[in-house]
Amino acid sequence: MRVTSGDALIELLRARTVVLTTHINPDGDALGSMIALYLFLQSRSIQVQMWLDDNLPRMYSFLPEIEKIVRPPASTLQVDLFVVLDAGDASRTGISATSYRGRSLNIDHHLSNRDFADLTVVDETVAATGVIILRMLEEADCGISKQIANCLYTAIATDCGFFRYANTDTQTFYAAARLVSYGAEPNWISEQLQVMPLSKITALSKVLDTLEVSGCGRVALIEVPPEVNSSDVEDTEGFIDYPRNIFGVEVAIMFKPSKEKQTVKVSFRSKRLNVSDFARSLGGGGHARAAGCTLKGTLPEVKSMVLIRVLSALREAGL
Amino acid sequence: MRVTSGDALIELLRARTVVLTTHINPDGDALGSMIALYLFLQSRSIQVQMWLDDNLPRMYSFLPEIEKIVRPPASTLQVDLFVVLDAGDASRTGISATSYRGRSLNIDHHLSNRDFADLTVVDETVAATGVIILRMLEEADCGISKQIANCLYTAIATDCGFFRYANTDTQTFYAAARLVSYGAEPNWISEQLQVMPLSKITALSKVLDTLEVSGCGRVALIEVPPEVNSSDVEDTEGFIDYPRNIFGVEVAIMFKPSKEKQTVKVSFRSKRLNVSDFARSLGGGGHARAAGCTLKGTLPEVKSMVLIRVLSALREAGL
Repeated sequence: MRVTSGDALIELLRARTVVLTTHINPDGDALGSMIALYLFLQSRSIQVQMWLDDNLPRMYSFLPEIEKIVRPPASTLQVDLFVVLDAGDASRTGISATSYRGRSLNIDHHLSNRDFADLTVVDETVAATGVIILRMLEEADCGISKQIANCLYTAIATDCGFFRYANTDTQTFYAAARLVSYGAEPNWISEQLQVMPLSKITALSKVLDTLEVSGCGRVALIEVPPEVNSSDVEDTEGFIDYPRNIFGVEVAIMFKPSKEKQTVKVSFRSKRLNVSDFARSLGGGGHARAAGCTLKGTLPEVKSMVLIRVLSALREAGL
Repeated sequence: MRVTSGDALIELLRARTVVLTTHINPDGDALGSMIALYLFLQSRSIQVQMWLDDNLPRMYSFLPEIEKIVRPPASTLQVDLFVVLDAGDASRTGISATSYRGRSLNIDHHLSNRDFADLTVVDETVAATGVIILRMLEEADCGISKQIANCLYTAIATDCGFFRYANTDTQTFYAAARLVSYGAEPNWISEQLQVMPLSKITALSKVLDTLEVSGCGRVALIEVPPEVNSSDVEDTEGFIDYPRNIFGVEVAIMFKPSKEKQTVKVSFRSKRLNVSDFARSLGGGGHARAAGCTLKGTLPEVKSMVLIRVLSALREAGL
């Protein structure tokens, strides 16, 4: 049943025992929203636990109380309210239905929400689940602590790419403004999130060494060389933005060969070309400006095949 | 004489001829504020010109009407109002006092403002001159166009490092929220500003290849190799943030040798150490977390001397 954030707040304040959880591969919105709600419920003397069926990314270790997040228990727990944050589908939490007994509440901002819970608060118009949590806590009218403000600021800022993505709207900025008035520290949070392991910088250096430009400057290509530990997904995240941001480049392509599987993972980023259609024609998928596929073959084979097809797609699109 | 933004607005609307200018090495706040005010005065049928005694950085070429900005003329121009934006000192404009005759108005947000103009509007509490212009145009109550909103958004977002610097406060976010409601496009503007020349990416790649870490991971060093065209200041801007953002690094140092002068330009960025004091002890200066100096000697000499002194400064600071 769809309910308002006000109704959900009443349910939460009525509960004596609450479990909060969120999706696997948690991002800033998942963790920030969960910890903010945890801190609020704790301050109201409600017994609350945070569950996560995944490892915690080290980059969020600056968030308060993050060490209180635990793996779901093996036995079944009886709770008044089981809350799933920032996920539109129960399976995204990785938690089996036998882990808990109790009513379920889902708070989310994804268009694809599947109404899987007993009570669902969804607002697809907001940039982050953190905006919905902020509204709920403001409705509770009991003051928002600096710690909660920092968690919600992290949630919102990370989900809108620090106010750079297309989902950044008036609501996003008004939410950020209020959070700063409650004590959130944009500079401190941004500093915490900018920290990278040394291995990422050396990997970036090695990947950028492979940069090639083709098609009169319209296509830029990079490779992830074998010495860069390609098992660690986080390590090459964001690298494709470098070729994409080059002046005049329409399409950036990153090639990540896997020796064992004799395949090459290919990622596309574009300024105007619809690379989702393009990736789909190669058996992959994605979004209009960010897509990918995995192809069989050696790196030189895949590279020349993909380049020829990208150049012809650009020609067809008149770019 | 210090006046309010309302008084300044009345002066502007009373004028029939206005010249706007800003500081040399113009940034987003300088150009965005100037063009926003230009568009507003034009819409009120006031004769207005924009002067800049410098080249226009290519990265801002997406701003509307930027091609209307001209060099100051050789002869003296009589105007009702000569407006200096985002500069606290007349000399920062590079324009000689013989270029114009008329009353001067200065609109600025720098603490160091020298009250050089006939009328001065200064607000040191705001992150950008664009915030003051926004307020003025809102007081004029005649609607803010999408073009003006994009100029002012650029002004504000660039001066607060896209909401990452310590000057990002509640006012900054409220201003951004209102600008988006007037039609500003955060995603589009961010895309325009992320575009880099190919030479910058290849320079980054070469500079990152020189990365060294010392002092048990607390000091990270990079060099600008001779093949990177070091005359172009813009080209290595931001590079020192890569070593600085490495996990565990306290101080990042960038060395830029000049063969002709037999000197090495040394830049420092830190997380906690006061590098301003440190740079001053070497004849340089700067801010607490970003400073620099220029030293005589070869690169290996300067490098080992600086590293020894940084390590001892870290020891003294207990870091």
